[in-house]
Amino acid sequence: MVAPEVTDTRFSLSQAEIPSAWFNVAPHLSSPLDPPLHPATREPVGPDDLAPLFAAELIGQEMSADPWIDIPGEVLDVLRLWRPTPLVRARRLEAALGTTARIYFKDESVSPAGSHKPNSAVPQAFYNAREGIKRLTTETGAGQWGTALSFASAQYDLECAVYMVRKSFEQKPYRKVIMETWGGSVVPSPIDDPSNAGSLGSAISDAVRDAMGREDTHYALGSVLNHVLLHQTIIGLEAQQQLALAGETRPDVVIAPCGGGSNLGGLALPFLPDPAVRLLAAEPASCPTLTQGTYEYDFGDVQGLTPMMNMYTLGHDFMPPGIHAGGLRYHGDSPIISKLVHEGRMEAVAHRQKAVFEANVLFARVEGKLPAPEAGHGIASAIAEANDATAKNEERVILFNYCGHGLLDLAAYQDHLAGDLGEEP
Amino acid sequence: MVAPEVTDTRFSLSQAEIPSAWFNVAPHLSSPLDPPLHPATREPVGPDDLAPLFAAELIGQEMSADPWIDIPGEVLDVLRLWRPTPLVRARRLEAALGTTARIYFKDESVSPAGSHKPNSAVPQAFYNAREGIKRLTTETGAGQWGTALSFASAQYDLECAVYMVRKSFEQKPYRKVIMETWGGSVVPSPIDDPSNAGSLGSAISDAVRDAMGREDTHYALGSVLNHVLLHQTIIGLEAQQQLALAGETRPDVVIAPCGGGSNLGGLALPFLPDPAVRLLAAEPASCPTLTQGTYEYDFGDVQGLTPMMNMYTLGHDFMPPGIHAGGLRYHGDSPIISKLVHEGRMEAVAHRQKAVFEANVLFARVEGKLPAPEAGHGIASAIAEANDATAKNEERVILFNYCGHGLLDLAAYQDHLAGDLGEEP
Repeated sequence: MVAPEVTDTRFSLSQAEIPSAWFNVAPHLSSPLDPPLHPATREPVGPDDLAPLFAAELIGQEMSADPWIDIPGEVLDVLRLWRPTPLVRARRLEAALGTTARIYFKDESVSPAGSHKPNSAVPQAFYNAREGIKRLTTETGAGQWGTALSFASAQYDLECAVYMVRKSFEQKPYRKVIMETWGGSVVPSPIDDPSNAGSLGSAISDAVRDAMGREDTHYALGSVLNHVLLHQTIIGLEAQQQLALAGETRPDVVIAPCGGGSNLGGLALPFLPDPAVRLLAAEPASCPTLTQGTYEYDFGDVQGLTPMMNMYTLGHDFMPPGIHAGGLRYHGDSPIISKLVHEGRMEAVAHRQKAVFEANVLFARVEGKLPAPEAGHGIASAIAEANDATAKNEERVILFNYCGHGLLDLAAYQDHLAGDLGEEP
Repeated sequence: MVAPEVTDTRFSLSQAEIPSAWFNVAPHLSSPLDPPLHPATREPVGPDDLAPLFAAELIGQEMSADPWIDIPGEVLDVLRLWRPTPLVRARRLEAALGTTARIYFKDESVSPAGSHKPNSAVPQAFYNAREGIKRLTTETGAGQWGTALSFASAQYDLECAVYMVRKSFEQKPYRKVIMETWGGSVVPSPIDDPSNAGSLGSAISDAVRDAMGREDTHYALGSVLNHVLLHQTIIGLEAQQQLALAGETRPDVVIAPCGGGSNLGGLALPFLPDPAVRLLAAEPASCPTLTQGTYEYDFGDVQGLTPMMNMYTLGHDFMPPGIHAGGLRYHGDSPIISKLVHEGRMEAVAHRQKAVFEANVLFARVEGKLPAPEAGHGIASAIAEANDATAKNEERVILFNYCGHGLLDLAAYQDHLAGDLGEEP
């Protein structure tokens, strides 16, 4: 095997180089996270409060202060189906922009589900199966998380029930088919109001209520929580090895789309200890949690079934417009991400839908990859950073997360090409 | 960079290891191919007869006896966006089958178009652009080739007009969207008969007539011709390097789906000089060109506009049932593939649609990749070979071409899961 040259555009690791432990950001925060509060008593929740919903191992990870947490071999065996994922230098995008910057992206679209989501779905399914659980429930927005959990459940012989945000369920009928191909079952949410377009917050309510009603069933969340971001850090850990192969000391700025925070946290958190690395969250202007929300305790779901968390929120009853980036339509945000933004360690920017699709079409034409609407928020930010670097004649090293492909989002491209994205922000 | 271990499941080459020349099978055939005949005079065609349709460089490759043909740097620059593609050992499929065989597949689904097709679309667009052509026309069945040529045309600033088999056009509306995202234009074929489901043969007629009518326009064919198979040999050349990384001396059998023959030829032809390697074509039972056709001169299209070629054919007016594997609905076959089958050097087998989808769902569940209907023909054959090896307690090394993903074919999976594939063979 020949080592890559720095003139290459794709930097691959062998399977022997896949990280064997996740990076826990907890010891690197300025102070411990504020505790989640019980939705009724508003007292800090302990492991027993979470046990009806989550595997004990996941609850332990949620509260762990250990700097590294080993990845079980049975999890690595499945992750190796697509990991390590490539790090790509977007030289053709650089040329199209005429930029002085160097642009890299981590390609998480190569997973079975087409996004970063299986990185957490696989360990969540594994730990639940090992603890005797037979069935998982979850919510899904764009469909990426439900697809990932359906795939992961099939690997460990679990049933999987997916509550899908109704707006996405109707926009993306084929998402249901792919989930069913992996053995999942899919219903639109909210289940009790067919006229309601739904949101991640309402779908979480449905999934949590289902799991609370059955002994053999747990709930799985695809973002927001500490253990989800933990599982996603495999992205950033691989990227660090690959940037070294590319001859880079560090990125100047690390960018990712942000809905609940999992793909952003996954790429960015391993870079947190280096103060020279800027961290940037890219969110939709129509659901501007980090850029226009308030930092306070709020529920994770619409109906107030989940613990309250200290985070940026638009209010747990906020109903975002039905933009195509369904995975970013969430009123709140990861407490870890929220704390970093609140303390000024992480920046945030919001993009309008039309600008996101213009970035996506440019990216597809020059790099040959058709991005998910969510991924376009990262691309739009990367392009803005590159243009800024060019204006200042800087050799800025930009790293963004290409968190998913758009092959199941072609109806959105159809609307965009027809000039029919509407007037939403 | 750490070299792969033979216990790995994915064998990747660095970009520095991408082949720099295509493998020309001509010197390795038992005798020269029979010449194509002019459709009117039935005399052998020369370069001048083909010049209205094809770039001079491609005509030269079509008739070349050179053992190797260099890949231009401008072509490699684009191929490197996704090549080299991975070779994967399907260990989880092996476990599910409980087989004594070792199963490998070459993953061509990672290309921009999601199939092997860009391997030829890119050089065809490049040579035409270099010779001053401004516009390409083509046909597409499942949509894979039209998608590939739209992408490739965008890389060299060519216009691209795609005539899409009407049955596929109606089954797969999002194929049109992805082609348009890359700047292609798409119309259903036959253009003069909206009640006709169409076939590759009829779409070729439409595309050839368009190209013959304009000075600035050439035609591009996605399979069948010698130069197309030549461009695809990059698949088999990479696979040879990767099998060595996996610790294999040679495959015992090389398998690929066969419609016109391009993905089969691409994987199999570099193995032809080794008589210990069996070569196997997998075709649909509803369009059984190699298993039930006759070996004789026939037209490549329905209307008799193309040169006649000596090949297996079901008759140029054969109209196959509207199966989901639209890319395999072709009445004829590559003259190279046909000659190898006729002489007994290559075997052929036909699969029914239902069996193909059962193989695809198994593959998706254990390997995490959702196959195109076309790709399932190779998977079904690989499973049959593995089961045969197990019955004989043989350590057979099986290599098949995973020629494309099925993410734009979910309507077919929907029909399959609903038990609604119909009674076609």
